[in-house]
Amino acid sequence: NVVAIPVDDPIAFTFFTGYMAMLAASVFFFFERGSVDGKWKLSMLVSALITGIAAVHYYYMRDYYLATGQTPTALRYIDWTLTVPLMCVEFYLLTKSAGAKTSLLWKLILASVFMLVTGYIGEAFSGGDSTQVALWGTLSTIGYVYVLYSAWYGEVAKLAKNTGDSTVIKGINTLGWFVLVGWAIYPIGYMCMPGGWLNTGLGWESSNVDLFYNIADAINKIGFGLVVYNIAINSKKA
Amino acid sequence: NVVAIPVDDPIAFTFFTGYMAMLAASVFFFFERGSVDGKWKLSMLVSALITGIAAVHYYYMRDYYLATGQTPTALRYIDWTLTVPLMCVEFYLLTKSAGAKTSLLWKLILASVFMLVTGYIGEAFSGGDSTQVALWGTLSTIGYVYVLYSAWYGEVAKLAKNTGDSTVIKGINTLGWFVLVGWAIYPIGYMCMPGGWLNTGLGWESSNVDLFYNIADAINKIGFGLVVYNIAINSKKA
Ligand SMILES: CC1=C(/C=C/C(C)=C/C=C/C(C)=C/C=O)C(C)(C)CCC1
Ligand SMILES: CC1=C(/C=C/C(C)=C/C=C/C(C)=C/C=O)C(C)(C)CCC1
Repeated sequence: NVVAIPVDDPIAFTFFTGYMAMLAASVFFFFERGSVDGKWKLSMLVSALITGIAAVHYYYMRDYYLATGQTPTALRYIDWTLTVPLMCVEFYLLTKSAGAKTSLLWKLILASVFMLVTGYIGEAFSGGDSTQVALWGTLSTIGYVYVLYSAWYGEVAKLAKNTGDSTVIKGINTLGWFVLVGWAIYPIGYMCMPGGWLNTGLGWESSNVDLFYNIADAINKIGFGLVVYNIAINSKKA
Repeated sequence: NVVAIPVDDPIAFTFFTGYMAMLAASVFFFFERGSVDGKWKLSMLVSALITGIAAVHYYYMRDYYLATGQTPTALRYIDWTLTVPLMCVEFYLLTKSAGAKTSLLWKLILASVFMLVTGYIGEAFSGGDSTQVALWGTLSTIGYVYVLYSAWYGEVAKLAKNTGDSTVIKGINTLGWFVLVGWAIYPIGYMCMPGGWLNTGLGWESSNVDLFYNIADAINKIGFGLVVYNIAINSKKA
């Protein structure tokens, strides 16, 4: 009953790397929370929680994948249900000093929950039907675009400018790039499932769903936290 | 022997999300305890214990549910036996500065233990008999209404006003709403069991008992703690 990872299974590889990277990142953020200035401690804690929560779910997901070879859809969305709203909390905390109200937080959470609920329906209940996959994926994208818009041109972007702190402005700008490029990897994964455009159109295998999701998770969860860490470190100097 | 959550099982979904949310909330309260003003550290610790205790019970409950598909009634009430009195402690601690006596604490604990003992009898020994379910549910509600009354018009409400701290008054008012709306989800779950009004009357399935309990627990345990955290943060500034 030992962990046996086939050498030719990139998905198992990323599940295990992802697990360990999340755990290590979480320990890192917990420790460094003690070194940053008081006003950044809360953001650091949220970063640690995001990667910590992911570490637990990756622990289950990699074992599930290794045992069954299947996509752990439910576990994946259980993880996102918790970590994506926490990322919205990060945006809120960073812009709070510029006067962000809780209404902003709720709008971001609402949009991202909409994105996840519709995405889940698409993944869990489409049964490989192309129309269903496309319909729910498109709906989901509306929620995604709302968060994206907010980070680039909407409330988050405006508030970031108002902070007058160049480190925060640059940091939020970087987070915007994460939402634009990093988050965009998820829909690519989604379209690899049976009935998805990349699956039916280009013949990409459905096992790639997890490959893309794992890579995207590592980039976004750990990267997001590192950006926040960077803001905390540099803004301290100023 | 891996964790395999069916995609179409919302109850398993909430058991897992609940577990992770409780654990994360507990870590959050433990850490943030270090950042709040001295007089709030005790309340923060109690919040961390409530969610921490729940995390352990959710760990067992989710596994029990996944393996058997049954309601983990005993584990549920074991959890409540510890966490509900701790919530009474929260009320007591918040009103202590206004002169709350331990007699208030004991009255709240007595009422809520009465609520839980009668509720347990109703759930464990009614055997689907409508009369039994209704009888014990009604008795249980008496205890619930006592706590509700105390928070809205009774001793807790009066003492909150006496604190003269607007953050505390507003906070206790919010907790009152939690007891009115959040706690009211529990009897809804109760009435879904075989012989309950929602089960016999509207045909709601008995599996919904856990769905409602899980949602209510997440709202009340984590929400309660966040309200206390909010009081601690804002009252510190003043
Ligand atoms: C647009 C879109 C999706 C977007 C998912 C995203 C953007 C997930 C982000 C997750 C993050 C950031 C997790 C980190 O903790 C889905 C649901 C795949 C469905 C297809 C359409
Ligand atoms: C009124 C009523 C009930 C109320 C239960 C409540 C109000 C439980 C609260 C639990 C909490 C707040 C736990 C958090 O840690 C029961 C027992 C279901 C039985 C039916 C009648």
